[in-house]
Amino acid sequence: MLTDGLVDRLREAVGAAHVSLDDDTRALYGMDGTGQGASPNAVVWPGSTTDVAAVARLCDESRTPMVPRGAGTGYSGGAIPVAGGVVLSLERLNRILEIDTANLLAVVEPHVVTGVLQAEVERHGLFYPPDPASLDRSVIGGNVAENAGGPRAFKYGVTRQYVLGLEAVLPTGQVIRTGGKTVKNVVGYDVTQLLVGSEGTLAILTEITLRLLPKPAAVATLRLLFPGVASAVDAVSDVIREGLIPAAIELVDRVSLEAVARHLGEPGLAPPGVGALLLIEVDGDATQVARDAARVEHVCRQAGAMAVDAAADARARAELWRVRRALSPALRTIAPHKFNHDVVVPRARVTDLMTLVERLARGSRLTIPCFGHAGDGNIHVNIMAPDEPDALARAREAETALVEGVLALEGSISGEHGIGLAKARFLGFELTPDTVRLMRRIKQAFDPRGILNPGKIFPSDGGAR
Amino acid sequence: MLTDGLVDRLREAVGAAHVSLDDDTRALYGMDGTGQGASPNAVVWPGSTTDVAAVARLCDESRTPMVPRGAGTGYSGGAIPVAGGVVLSLERLNRILEIDTANLLAVVEPHVVTGVLQAEVERHGLFYPPDPASLDRSVIGGNVAENAGGPRAFKYGVTRQYVLGLEAVLPTGQVIRTGGKTVKNVVGYDVTQLLVGSEGTLAILTEITLRLLPKPAAVATLRLLFPGVASAVDAVSDVIREGLIPAAIELVDRVSLEAVARHLGEPGLAPPGVGALLLIEVDGDATQVARDAARVEHVCRQAGAMAVDAAADARARAELWRVRRALSPALRTIAPHKFNHDVVVPRARVTDLMTLVERLARGSRLTIPCFGHAGDGNIHVNIMAPDEPDALARAREAETALVEGVLALEGSISGEHGIGLAKARFLGFELTPDTVRLMRRIKQAFDPRGILNPGKIFPSDGGAR
Repeated sequence: MLTDGLVDRLREAVGAAHVSLDDDTRALYGMDGTGQGASPNAVVWPGSTTDVAAVARLCDESRTPMVPRGAGTGYSGGAIPVAGGVVLSLERLNRILEIDTANLLAVVEPHVVTGVLQAEVERHGLFYPPDPASLDRSVIGGNVAENAGGPRAFKYGVTRQYVLGLEAVLPTGQVIRTGGKTVKNVVGYDVTQLLVGSEGTLAILTEITLRLLPKPAAVATLRLLFPGVASAVDAVSDVIREGLIPAAIELVDRVSLEAVARHLGEPGLAPPGVGALLLIEVDGDATQVARDAARVEHVCRQAGAMAVDAAADARARAELWRVRRALSPALRTIAPHKFNHDVVVPRARVTDLMTLVERLARGSRLTIPCFGHAGDGNIHVNIMAPDEPDALARAREAETALVEGVLALEGSISGEHGIGLAKARFLGFELTPDTVRLMRRIKQAFDPRGILNPGKIFPSDGGAR
Repeated sequence: MLTDGLVDRLREAVGAAHVSLDDDTRALYGMDGTGQGASPNAVVWPGSTTDVAAVARLCDESRTPMVPRGAGTGYSGGAIPVAGGVVLSLERLNRILEIDTANLLAVVEPHVVTGVLQAEVERHGLFYPPDPASLDRSVIGGNVAENAGGPRAFKYGVTRQYVLGLEAVLPTGQVIRTGGKTVKNVVGYDVTQLLVGSEGTLAILTEITLRLLPKPAAVATLRLLFPGVASAVDAVSDVIREGLIPAAIELVDRVSLEAVARHLGEPGLAPPGVGALLLIEVDGDATQVARDAARVEHVCRQAGAMAVDAAADARARAELWRVRRALSPALRTIAPHKFNHDVVVPRARVTDLMTLVERLARGSRLTIPCFGHAGDGNIHVNIMAPDEPDALARAREAETALVEGVLALEGSISGEHGIGLAKARFLGFELTPDTVRLMRRIKQAFDPRGILNPGKIFPSDGGAR
C-alpha cells in the first residue's frame, strides 16, 4: 500500500489524470507477455523526463518499489511488479523526435513501437534491423532494456548494436546522458552498453539515439521444407560454410509447425512428411539477392530440402513471416503451461542441442516444440505441460536439465528474453558467485536503495546458486 | 617505493625471474605510444590467471597502485603508471588458445599481437576486422581495454563488436567470467561490454573470446586525390548516399601528406595541387568488389577526384596502407610537440569540423594536420607545436577550443584513443557531473580501494569539470 501522502505527491508530480489506483488498470499494468502478473499499488504515466525524475525521487525517498514498463510483451517477467509499488508506464513518451538521414540515426522516446519506427525510417530509405517477433506491439525502450534480438540478428546483430546514446533517469532521480550521435565514443565507461539489457533494473530510459542503416535495395525470403530437424540444421551449416550471410536463418520443428497450422486453421502449413522448416531471408542489392537466393536454394536442396518456396515481393514475404510470428501464441494449443526458454549455443552445436531436447522430451513425457534463430544458435525451447501437478514437476526437472545441458555445450541460458523473474533461479548455473556479486555491486552503484524493479535477475535467496 | 616484503611476495607469486626493479626496465615499461611516461616501482610478468590474481591481491592488500600493460602503443597515457606502483605486463599471456572455424570464434590470451591473430585466422579462411594503425605491435588485450577502432570500423564496427566473452581478474583478486562462446547472451548485466573500453581501470583481462567473420573473397583499395579537403569530404557523402558500404573510407589532408612524404623520403606522395587524399577499400565477393570499386571511382570523379589508383592485389594494397599507417609517426617531422586528438562528429558534420580546425590553425598560428576515418566522422586532429612556451600555451588553448567546438557539433571528444591521462581534463566538458559521479561509483564497485590504474579517466581534482 502506498501512503495517501505519496499518492498525492505523485499526482502533483505528473497530474492527477496520470495516476491510477483502479483495480483493473493495476492488474492490466502488472502483466507481461507470459500472461502472468502481479498488481502494483499504482500506475503512473509520466509525460516527460522531468516527470520521470520526480516520480523516481518520490519513490526513492519513500523506499517504494518502482517498475518501468514498456509494452509489457516480455517473456521473462521483467515488467511484473512482484514487490508492488509503482508501475511507471512510459506510454506518453512515444514520439519519434528526429530521423537524421544524413547521419543515419534516429532519436526516439522509449514508447515508440518498434514496427512503427521501422516503417517510418523505411519511408526515408533507411533501415532499423532489430525485429523481435513482437515488433507490432513491443516498444524501443523495452527492446533496449531487454537487448531484443529477432531473426535479422544473424546478419545485423541485436538491439545493442544500434544504440548510440541514451538519456536515462537514475532511481535516485538524477538524469544522465550517455553516448550520443556519433558511431564511435570511448569517453568514460560505456554506460550506454551497460544499460542495454539491464532489464529495467538500473535506470529508466527516457530518450534513445539509434543508429540506422541504408535500406537494402532487395530482399528475398525462402521457405524450405526438410524431412527432419537434422537435415535442416545441416543445411544451415552448409549455407554458412558457403560464405553466404543471409539476413535471417529461422528453424521451425514439426511440433511447432503443427501447432501453428492448428492455431491458424490452415492444415497445409504442416504437410505430411515434413519434419522441419527453414525460413531464410537474403538482402542486399538486387543482383546479389537473386544470386544468393539461388545459392541458398541449391545448397539446401543438396542437404535434403524437399520443397522450396521463394517470396520476392513484400506481400509474399509478409505471408511467410506471418507463420513464424504466430508460433509463440500457437503453442498454447498444445498445452496450457509453457516453460519458455531461449537458450543459445555456439552455432555448430545446434544439432547437439536438438538431441538434448529430444532426450528431455522422452524422459519427461512432455512435448517440447522448438523454433528460432538457428543461424545464431539461439533456439526457443518450449516445455509444454498439461494442467497436472505431476506434469508441472516434470517440466521443472526438464528445465533444470535443459539449462545444465546447454551450459555443458558452452551455451548460455538466455539469448534474447533476459533473466527477469523466470530465469533468476538459473543465474548461478551460468555465472560464478564472484561474477554475480560484482553484478550486485553494479546494481548498488545505480540504485543504492534497491527500489528499481526489485526481485529481478538476482535470485531472491541472495545466494549465487 | 615498494616495501621489501611486498617485493619478496611478488617474487614468490610469479617467480623471481618475472619481477624487475631495474631502472631502465622500469622506465621502458612506464611509457606509452605518446613517448611520455613515468617509472613504476616494479615491473611484474605474470604467467597465468592465477599469477595475475595473486599479484592483484598483494597490491590490493598493500594499497599499491597496479597498472596492467599490453604493448604500450596507446595514445592517451592509459598505460602510464602515474602513481608508481606495479606495472603488470601481460607479455607472457600471448597464446592463441583456440580458433574454432565451425563457430567462427577465437579464444586468445591478452598479449596476442592483433596483426598476428589476423594472419592466423585468415589462414583458416576467417577474418578479424578491427585494424588499429598499430596492429603490427598492439595486442588484443590493449585493443579491448581501449575499444580500438581502425579504418575498417566503417563497415565492420570497432573491437567492442567482436568481444563475446572475457575472463578477468578484479583488482581485489577474484576471477570473473563474462559472456562466452555464443553470439547472443543476455544473462545478467553485460560486464563484457562494460570492460571493453574501460582503459584498464576496472579489471585485468586474462582471456578473450572473439567473434570472427568469414574472410571476404575479394578486396580492392582505391587511392583518390582531390584538390582540397572539401571536395574529398563531399565525395565521402556521395559514396555513402549511393548506398555503397566500403570497408574503409580514410581521409588525409595536405599537411599530413607532406609530412609522410618527408618522413618516408618520397616526395611523390604529395604531388603539387593535391589538397587531400581518400583511401577507400571495398570488400566482398569478387563481382561485387569490381562493381563497387567502379562505382566508388565514378562517384569520386564526379565529386572532383583528380587521380585514382586502384590496388587489387595484396602487395599493392599493402603499399597504399603503408602510407596511411606511417602518418602518425610522420607528423613529428612538423614539430616536436603533438597534441593528439581523435574527435568524432556525426558523419555529415565532418565539413564543419574541418572548417573549425582551419579556424583554430589560423587563430593559434599552429599547424594542425588532420587525417582519419571520414566515414565514421572520426578525425585525428593533431595540434603541432614547436618547442616554445608561448606555442605550447596556444596549443592548449586550441585544444580546449577544439573540444568545445566538437561538442557544439554534437560530437564526442574521443572515438578511439580513450580518455586516459591526456583527455581527463576534458571529461566534464562532454559528460554531466551526475554522469561522471555514476561512473565513479561503477569504478568503486570493481575497485573499492582505487588501486587499479589510478589517475586515469577521471580528472584528478575530483570535480566533473
